[in-house]
Amino acid sequence: MNTTPMTLTRDDCLALDAADPLRALREQFSLPPGVVYLDGNSLGAQPASTPARVAEVVQQEWGTGLIRSWNSAGWITLPQRVGDKIGQLIGAQPGETLVADSTSINLYKVLSTAIRIAQADAPSRRVILSERSNFPTDLYIAQSLAQQHGLTLELTTADQIEARLGPDVAVLMLTQVNYRSGRLLDMAAITAAAHRTGALTVWDLAHSAGAVPVDLNGADADFAIGCGYKYLNGGPGAPAFVWAHARHADRFWQPLSGWMGHAAPFRFDTEYRPAPGMARYLCGTPPLISMSALECGVDTVLAAGTLGGMAALRAKSLQLSELFIAQVAARCSAHDLPLASPDVAAERGSQVSLACKVGGLAVMQALIARQVIGDFRAGDGSEAEPDLLRFGFTPLYTRFVDVFDAVTALCEVLDTAEWREARFNQQAAVT
Amino acid sequence: MNTTPMTLTRDDCLALDAADPLRALREQFSLPPGVVYLDGNSLGAQPASTPARVAEVVQQEWGTGLIRSWNSAGWITLPQRVGDKIGQLIGAQPGETLVADSTSINLYKVLSTAIRIAQADAPSRRVILSERSNFPTDLYIAQSLAQQHGLTLELTTADQIEARLGPDVAVLMLTQVNYRSGRLLDMAAITAAAHRTGALTVWDLAHSAGAVPVDLNGADADFAIGCGYKYLNGGPGAPAFVWAHARHADRFWQPLSGWMGHAAPFRFDTEYRPAPGMARYLCGTPPLISMSALECGVDTVLAAGTLGGMAALRAKSLQLSELFIAQVAARCSAHDLPLASPDVAAERGSQVSLACKVGGLAVMQALIARQVIGDFRAGDGSEAEPDLLRFGFTPLYTRFVDVFDAVTALCEVLDTAEWREARFNQQAAVT
Repeated sequence: MNTTPMTLTRDDCLALDAADPLRALREQFSLPPGVVYLDGNSLGAQPASTPARVAEVVQQEWGTGLIRSWNSAGWITLPQRVGDKIGQLIGAQPGETLVADSTSINLYKVLSTAIRIAQADAPSRRVILSERSNFPTDLYIAQSLAQQHGLTLELTTADQIEARLGPDVAVLMLTQVNYRSGRLLDMAAITAAAHRTGALTVWDLAHSAGAVPVDLNGADADFAIGCGYKYLNGGPGAPAFVWAHARHADRFWQPLSGWMGHAAPFRFDTEYRPAPGMARYLCGTPPLISMSALECGVDTVLAAGTLGGMAALRAKSLQLSELFIAQVAARCSAHDLPLASPDVAAERGSQVSLACKVGGLAVMQALIARQVIGDFRAGDGSEAEPDLLRFGFTPLYTRFVDVFDAVTALCEVLDTAEWREARFNQQAAVT
Repeated sequence: MNTTPMTLTRDDCLALDAADPLRALREQFSLPPGVVYLDGNSLGAQPASTPARVAEVVQQEWGTGLIRSWNSAGWITLPQRVGDKIGQLIGAQPGETLVADSTSINLYKVLSTAIRIAQADAPSRRVILSERSNFPTDLYIAQSLAQQHGLTLELTTADQIEARLGPDVAVLMLTQVNYRSGRLLDMAAITAAAHRTGALTVWDLAHSAGAVPVDLNGADADFAIGCGYKYLNGGPGAPAFVWAHARHADRFWQPLSGWMGHAAPFRFDTEYRPAPGMARYLCGTPPLISMSALECGVDTVLAAGTLGGMAALRAKSLQLSELFIAQVAARCSAHDLPLASPDVAAERGSQVSLACKVGGLAVMQALIARQVIGDFRAGDGSEAEPDLLRFGFTPLYTRFVDVFDAVTALCEVLDTAEWREARFNQQAAVT
């Protein structure tokens, strides 16, 4: 078999799939027939186990168990149980990770605590440092907290982060894998650099958890949050997760001091007293149906454990994205689609973005009409931030032949200018 | 038929059920056979429509539609769509109510805004006033915001609220129906009193929405939040709702400035710009499976619309609770179970609490073992705050015969001292 990614044929890809030691993992998902789904970085696919589990939660636990299920079905500890499962994927010890609320809200909690620690330990530090192309919700939450605490939110580029660290930086807040470019930051090196200059680190793992190996304790990170509905396959708007290093877990209240984070929620005290450890990062009553669906999703990633775990998933993810990049270069060379992701595999997460100077949204719509689902992310029109076609290569369910077929569709859409048709030139509310 | 509540027989209750114009509403629910469920004030029962709707969201919208369902299945406007349905139950105009996050988190949002408005318009007002027996999560969130803004949280009794209002009170934060006593506050009168003294009002409708008629605009309230999993039957941990009077909706950011509340979330701007109107009270991506289940629950309440709506539900709710109170007085008179709810029906929500000086938790456990499910709320041991047996009378699915049978079970448990058995004397994690 031909094994040079650039010259692989469709049959070669089918052979790669047949020989893939992870191929059985795809059977965990209910994917619609004929669809090439390359958007698991936005919304993971539906695990085949989820409908039955959700039906059980609705009909048995809620319908029959009613209020008793808080104890009998273990609802009260679900945030910890699912949190610990996610913890296995991100280098956390049991008890360090909780499922709660949304990524934005969890960021508000941990960034608040990080700011308070910095203000207590080093009040002269007045800057929250982040990356300009960080996911906007992270910047918006940081903007809110900067205003609240009289700090400055300063944005720089990924390349300038280490140089910008210094005695005025209180907290460095970064997303490990950039949502636009898929660039993977070196968490251990950057955390070490931040700590050398006295800054705390907050890591958003939205595009990391379940996609790339993460070792929060190994990197000595301070705080982390992440998303349940991307590579963890938890379902639309699945609850998010939150982690704090054990050295910080007991420091300060987080400001969303709801009753589930109280030391004794069912004592109904009038005074807030935070629970010891991570439980203080809970707030209100969690959405248990969505959280139960998340558990099914996390289980699909943990199922790779006996097949080499995150290291094996990572290896396949890079094989897939290398194949995509090589095939686009070989087969779409007539079109101007510069790679907008790092060309060094080790610096990429599990996605590949292509810059698209003209008609990006329409091109993606035309691809979706051909059942190849990626997504479009608008840029600001500048050279530095072009419009992007974004393709995610979730190794749990993406096949080599899917990559081949996606490139075929992309070539055809561009070759025939199919995307110029009026039906593909609408602005979509969500793309 | 005998119609004096105190002397009604079981057959009389069956006759009342047969004649009840709302009786068909119970068929909307899947209740386990043999269970008398009097805890809808803690977790509403499961609508029969929920399993199929949730399966559709999981299998069709997510599984088949995948990322496309943000548009094609209307996920992007679900918070507004379900919010407007709830709005019909609380005197809100379309566009004024959103479903989002949890009650605690929504309280944080609106109380933040209320404080900012007060600080801008009347900086000398430094007190957040609330009721001592308000639900603790409300007090905890207020405590957090009071600290953050340098205000004082002052707690008083329900009877002293109006007297305590004055030139130092910035915000009056109350739960309309008390979670312990079921006491119903007069929202219009208290809001008017607050406004006369220059304070803003924040109302928690956790035990009101779907239980008693609410008219936020009629009462000229300022802000409101409430719970989806009690009388709205939205399922365990269902998302909550949030409302602001139109005069306030556009004032200030709320601090949980996540991307879903941005004026143009899919522009991915680096600067936060709040959406006009209520959409700014959104934060992160909402848990869509749980939110879809909530819609089924809200629909069960809206189904009463053709049968007299909230007024008819309210009338039945009071008939049920009057019956319970009268029957307990008549049939459990050998036991010391003072009414811990207002004896005037118009001052009660949809629940009745009985003080229980000895063994309250064990008594409730013994009742639950007999399939009569209410709940237990511990007091602080004082005369003013005794241990409570709490019984909710959700008019959508509670029958008159359920009330009769619940009183029978209560009498028998107490008459035979069944509750003294060792198996009923454990402290439960959740009661």
